[in-house]
This record gives sequence, structure tokens and C-alpha cells, in this order.
Amino acid sequence: MPEAPALFPQDIIRKKRDGGALDRRAIETWIRGVVDGGFADYQSSALLMAIFQRGMSPRETAWLTEAMMRSGEVITLPEITAPKVDKHSTGGVGDKVSLILGPLAAAAGVCVPMISGRGLGHTGGTLDKLESIPGFRVGLSTDEYRRQLAALGLALAGQTASLVPADRKLYALRDVTATVECVPLICASIMSKKLAEGIDALVLDVKFGRGAFMKSLPEARRLARAMVAIGKAMQRPTVALLTEMNRPLGRAVGHALEVIESIECLKGRGPADLMEVTLALTEKMVLLAKLEKTPKAARLRVQRALDSGAALAKFRDTIRAQGGDPAVIDDYARLPQARRIVEIRAESAGYIRDVDAMAIALSGLRLGAGRERVEDHIDPAVGLSDLAQAGTRIANGDLLARLHVNNERHLAEATALARRAFTISKSKPRLAPLIREEIA
Amino acid sequence: MPEAPALFPQDIIRKKRDGGALDRRAIETWIRGVVDGGFADYQSSALLMAIFQRGMSPRETAWLTEAMMRSGEVITLPEITAPKVDKHSTGGVGDKVSLILGPLAAAAGVCVPMISGRGLGHTGGTLDKLESIPGFRVGLSTDEYRRQLAALGLALAGQTASLVPADRKLYALRDVTATVECVPLICASIMSKKLAEGIDALVLDVKFGRGAFMKSLPEARRLARAMVAIGKAMQRPTVALLTEMNRPLGRAVGHALEVIESIECLKGRGPADLMEVTLALTEKMVLLAKLEKTPKAARLRVQRALDSGAALAKFRDTIRAQGGDPAVIDDYARLPQARRIVEIRAESAGYIRDVDAMAIALSGLRLGAGRERVEDHIDPAVGLSDLAQAGTRIANGDLLARLHVNNERHLAEATALARRAFTISKSKPRLAPLIREEIA
Repeated sequence: MPEAPALFPQDIIRKKRDGGALDRRAIETWIRGVVDGGFADYQSSALLMAIFQRGMSPRETAWLTEAMMRSGEVITLPEITAPKVDKHSTGGVGDKVSLILGPLAAAAGVCVPMISGRGLGHTGGTLDKLESIPGFRVGLSTDEYRRQLAALGLALAGQTASLVPADRKLYALRDVTATVECVPLICASIMSKKLAEGIDALVLDVKFGRGAFMKSLPEARRLARAMVAIGKAMQRPTVALLTEMNRPLGRAVGHALEVIESIECLKGRGPADLMEVTLALTEKMVLLAKLEKTPKAARLRVQRALDSGAALAKFRDTIRAQGGDPAVIDDYARLPQARRIVEIRAESAGYIRDVDAMAIALSGLRLGAGRERVEDHIDPAVGLSDLAQAGTRIANGDLLARLHVNNERHLAEATALARRAFTISKSKPRLAPLIREEIA
Repeated sequence: MPEAPALFPQDIIRKKRDGGALDRRAIETWIRGVVDGGFADYQSSALLMAIFQRGMSPRETAWLTEAMMRSGEVITLPEITAPKVDKHSTGGVGDKVSLILGPLAAAAGVCVPMISGRGLGHTGGTLDKLESIPGFRVGLSTDEYRRQLAALGLALAGQTASLVPADRKLYALRDVTATVECVPLICASIMSKKLAEGIDALVLDVKFGRGAFMKSLPEARRLARAMVAIGKAMQRPTVALLTEMNRPLGRAVGHALEVIESIECLKGRGPADLMEVTLALTEKMVLLAKLEKTPKAARLRVQRALDSGAALAKFRDTIRAQGGDPAVIDDYARLPQARRIVEIRAESAGYIRDVDAMAIALSGLRLGAGRERVEDHIDPAVGLSDLAQAGTRIANGDLLARLHVNNERHLAEATALARRAFTISKSKPRLAPLIREEIA
């Protein structure tokens, strides 16, 4: 067969510009060009904008995901016979599910190759939270990652430079060209990274609501469907739960504070909302790992891993394996602590009708618990704890939240934001279920 | 008034991405950023693609034009009291109108500050044609340009580096990001350059048909309306004629060959179609210059400038002023000549029903009469002459075209293309009028 003529960047851009579908070869040419320079940045950004405007079919998105995944090292773990399943969340306020679910799933027999990201904007990052544990090292080499997975069934690592380099370049470009909020591009970015880490199957927590990236259920549904389709196309069974993110998940927001809450969960003392989401997602992992046949059996297996203390032990082992101080599990004072605690108390009696996740997140940001730009420094000790939860009955003067403060500069603003987050009503509110839909 | 906060490129891109209208400040920020680097190329290309997809209102297009015009030197000619009017054509095959109209309008009393471009693709460029005259210098400094306009009322120059630098940068970017074919961007590119050259008014020849950039009349109408609106917004009265470009204009295609045909026109021996378009456009220039009040009087004035030999004398003076050999006017042998002439003759009798401008242009390109890329070398001597025109009655064996050949490499292809350009029918064809509409 004669060799096909070379594809010029302009031809690929023009095709998408006019609403056409790109074929596999065009997409591979683009992604190879992103890495080797055959596609200039200004050509990629024009194509990204054309994709933003014209969309991509499920097939195009799957090809893009695969091309991005193959742009760097693709980890395979043939030496590990246990089923390898990871979870990815689109991000929310107080979302520390990974810290609980990782040890829980691993204790239940799932191998969890979890490569996470840093926090950006109003949501926290799993890596940043883990690093509040003294000594904890997220920068594992591929070899360390592989060995730890074989030994413990759990690794909580950051992305190495060799993984999906095309995504790093494209993500940086999308950030400065207003092409971030685009379902096929988000999908390909998430899925290429997850598929490169060596998984057999994937569970997605796609959040919607004012504290989430996707504001509405239909948007979240669209994103979830697209990602599940990619997983299928790549022979990696994928299940998504659509979960509400209007209120903070759990009662703590902030890095060390969320580690403490996660340990409390593993000790069986977690808040109901956080445990509900964590157990549901872990159950899906057990099912995808084919360790149990029915949801009921899977849930029982997960509950046993929690109740027996096996999950807590798995977290302890993982902290130790990654250089962290496992004594934090029994002594929270070994974690970074803020100099001062400011309490916010109710000024009327009634029921907590609502807690605005975004106001709580912004309050945490003002205290220094987040980054607005990638180069920003975060303070692992600060944040909010003991958040009163929606549906709770309160008396006048009851505690609504504790602010953990190191820097008083934006304290007034942080306090006002936290106070404003709470709505109190006379009657008991009816709360919609947190887990709204499953897409498989 | 407090200073408005700085606009980030991302914010400007996002606005247009979502279909919003950019305000004057956003557009000025962009164009300033194109020149000073505040807008990276990859940000401009994302914005160009967003504009391609979402369009621009007439107001936005006018602001863009003005910002681009002001990105460099803006020539003003206050010392010249004569009305300054130029003509711009969107380009066609055999379109040598500028070479005839410039001297004609100047002889009729219009000052014609004509800054032209090079040929690219299937259309020829005025500068390239002029340079086939031995010694002719198109690279005038702003001072030379200004002095010649004052002395002769006509300068035929190329764009200096100081004029509209934003357009040069954006045009180069559009070329490699598939964002060329976009009405507001085309408009702003053309109009910013024309407005920077010092005109009071402008006549546009917007061509449509298979030999033109715009393939259909409605497309051409849209472009013409947009440019006329910009001219109005900038207080430069602008009139557009929509002219058909399905067949070559006149009987010659090629650089020296078109110079010869232009001189023939100035000697009163031009082909009817070419003269029709040239006289109509020149008439509009005289009217915009307010040298006459009625179309009839304007046409009479133009016709007198032609018949009296004043236009031919003006061309001779201009050639001399710009360093060229004025003797070419009387002795065409002083122009570059091809080594060999190949004739194409009719193989049946009847009427020339049609001549495909694009096939003729491609034939000329194969002979070496054009550039496919900006760095390509052109051969000024080659091309096609004595093209039989649509509507002509011919006998079997009559001449259809002469190919002027220097390089035989693509001769067979050039000959086949030229032959295929002609359609011959038994009955006399009805030809639609060349000048289809006026937009003012």
C-alpha cells in the first residue's frame, strides 16, 4: 500500500474548524506533534478552540485519549495478579474520599494504583493532603510504585514526568487560551492519565453542584457518559456515580484537617455523608474487580474491611512505606497544627438548612489552605473543621465551624465567608440524596 | 475615574469563545498585545479561531480595523489638496485593472495613493507585474511615496515594514492556523492597510466566481457590505462593485504579458470586458473624489483622460519616476520574453461558450507565472496571451491561446489545462453582465 501523504497541521485544524470528524491518523499526528514540536503551540491552541466550538464524537475522544496515553510511558503491571481498579473524582470541597477509599479497597482485596494530582482553585488535591503527614513522599519512581503495589496493593503517588507528556503540554495551553471547560478535552485528559497508570477498571465520582466543576446534573451526566464510553472503548470497564456537591463533603476542609477526618473514618467514626459516598464508590471497585458478584456481597466485604481495622492498618502500612510518620494515626498532634482556632457559633436556633460549599472553600482559601496559581504555597495546617451539617438541629450559640488560623491577614473575610455559608431555618429541611445516578 | 483593571488574554478569548461581543478596549488590548508580545501567538490563534466560529459585529470589525491600522505608521497627506482615492480588488485571474486604472484616475485628477501586494496562490500581484518592467522600483520610502504623489498624483508602491505591523503578524498566523477565510478578519486586514496609506475614499472590486476568492455572489456581497460599513465607520466613503470572475479578465495572464495588455488598454485598444470593469471602477473613484457630480459626467471625464493620451502619459511618467524603463510603452520587446511560444487551436467550429479562469490560472502557474509559497520565484516572461474570449465565434483551427514557455518541465500539463479551460458550443452563449451589483 502506498504511504499516505503527510498531514499538515492546517489541514487538521481546517477539518475540525468546519465541523468535520478527525480520523485516528489526524489525531495521532496532532498528539505526536504536540510532543515533538511538529504542531506549534499556536496551531494546537487553534485546534483546541475549534474542538471547543465543534465538539468531538465518542470515537474521536477515544482516539485522542489513546494517543495522549501513548505520548509517554504506559505502565503495565503484569506481575500483579490482583484486579487493579482506581477511582477518580472530578473534585469537590472537602472531598477526601481517596484517602479513605484507597486503604479500604486495598484491604478488601483490590489493587489500587492511584496516581493523583495537586489542588488548584477551590478544590484540594490528594497529594497536598498526604504531604501534610510528616515525611510522606508522593514522588515515587515507577519502580517504587510497582514494588509497593505488589507488596501492599496500594500506592498513593504523583504523576511522573514520563507519564502522558502530551497532557501536561495541552493542559498548560488550555489554561491560558480559555479552552479548559470542554467535555471531550476534559475526558481525554483524565482518562489518558488513568489508563497510563496500569488499571484494569475505573470508578468515577463525577460531582455536580455549586462546589463542583460541573454546576448541573445534566452537564455531569454528559461528562460521565463520555468517560464511561472511553473506558469501554479502551477495554477498561468504567462506572460513574453522579454525586451532589452543593455542600462540603464531611466536616473538615483543609489538608491536615482532612487527613484527621479520613483517619476518623477508617476508625469507624466518619460523618454519614462522607461514608455514604466512600462506601458506594468502594463497593463499585470491588464489583469491577470481580471479587464479589452482587452489590450486597460487595458492600459486606467493604464493611468488613472497615470494621475489622484492616483498612486502617492498610493506611498505616502505606504511610510507613512512603516514608511518612505512621504515628499520626494515633496522635493527631503530630500533624501540622494552626496557632489559633476561631469559632463560629449560631446566632439563632433551628435547623441547618444549607451549607454553601463554595463559600466554605473560599473561606479556606483565605486562610491559606489552597492555591490560586500552581506556584502558590499552601499552608497544610489551616482550614475549617467541625462544620455543622445540613439537617442538623441547633440551639442558639451552638458551634457552626472552627477556623484554624495561622495568618490573620484575611481572617475577617474568611470568617464572614464561613458564617455566610450557613442557612438556618425553623423547619427541618428535606435533603436530596447525595448519590444521584449511576452511569455504566 | 478609577483605572479599569487589566484585561487578561484568557478573559478576552473566553468572551468571544462564548459568542460575546468584544468591546473597543478588549480589541485594542489584543492588537497592542500582538505587536508588543502581551498576547502570545497561541493566544492570538485561539482568539482567531473563536472569531472564525463566532463572527464579529460591524462595530467590532471597525474597532479591529482601526486598532490594526494604528498598530504602525498611519500616513497622512495634508500637503496634497487633491482628493485621494484608491481601489482595492479581492483578486482574480488576469486582473491587471490597477495598472490601467491608476494612471487613468490620476490623469482624470484623482490622487491615487496605491499600496499593493504580491501575488499568492492562483492570483497575480500588482507589484510583481510592475517589476517585470526593467528597473521598476516598488520599494518606495514613505518620503518618496509622499513626494511622488504630490508631483504625479500616482504612486504604485509596496507596503513598508512600518505600516500595519499587526496585520503582518496576524496574517502569518492565520495562514498556518486555518483562519484565513473569515469575513471580519479579511475585512480588517484589507481595510487597515488601505486606511493607513492616506486615502479619503476607497473603491472596492469584490470578485466572485470560480477564479475568485469568494465563490458565490452572496459571499462577495457579505464581504463587500462589511468593508463598506468599515469605510463609513472610519469616515472614508467606500463603494464596492461586485464583479464576476468566472473567466479571465482580458486576454492575457502572466506578468509582462499583463503589462503589455495594460499598455494596450491605455492606448485605447483594450478588450471590452477589461475596459468595462476598469472604466466603471475609475468612474466611481472620480465620483468619490467629487470631481464630477453625475456618473455620466464622471464617465466622460475618464473617457477623455483615456482618449487624450493623458492616462498613457501618466503611466509613462510613473514608470520613469519609479526607476523603470519608459521605452517599454513603445517597444514591448524590452519586457522579458519567453523563449518559446506554443499555440493552442480550436478542434471544432462554433462559439466559445466558456473559459474557466481557474484552469487558465493553473496553466499559468505550471508555466512558472506564480507562487505557491511566498518564497517561490516567479518568471515574469511566461504565461498565456491571446486568450479567445467567451461569446466569440471561431472556426476549426482558430487560435484559442498562446502559451509563453521558458521551462518545458510542466508544459504538457499546462497545455492540457489551457485546452480544457475552453468550452465550445454550436449556439451563441448568453453571457451574464460582468458588473453585477454596487454596494455603497
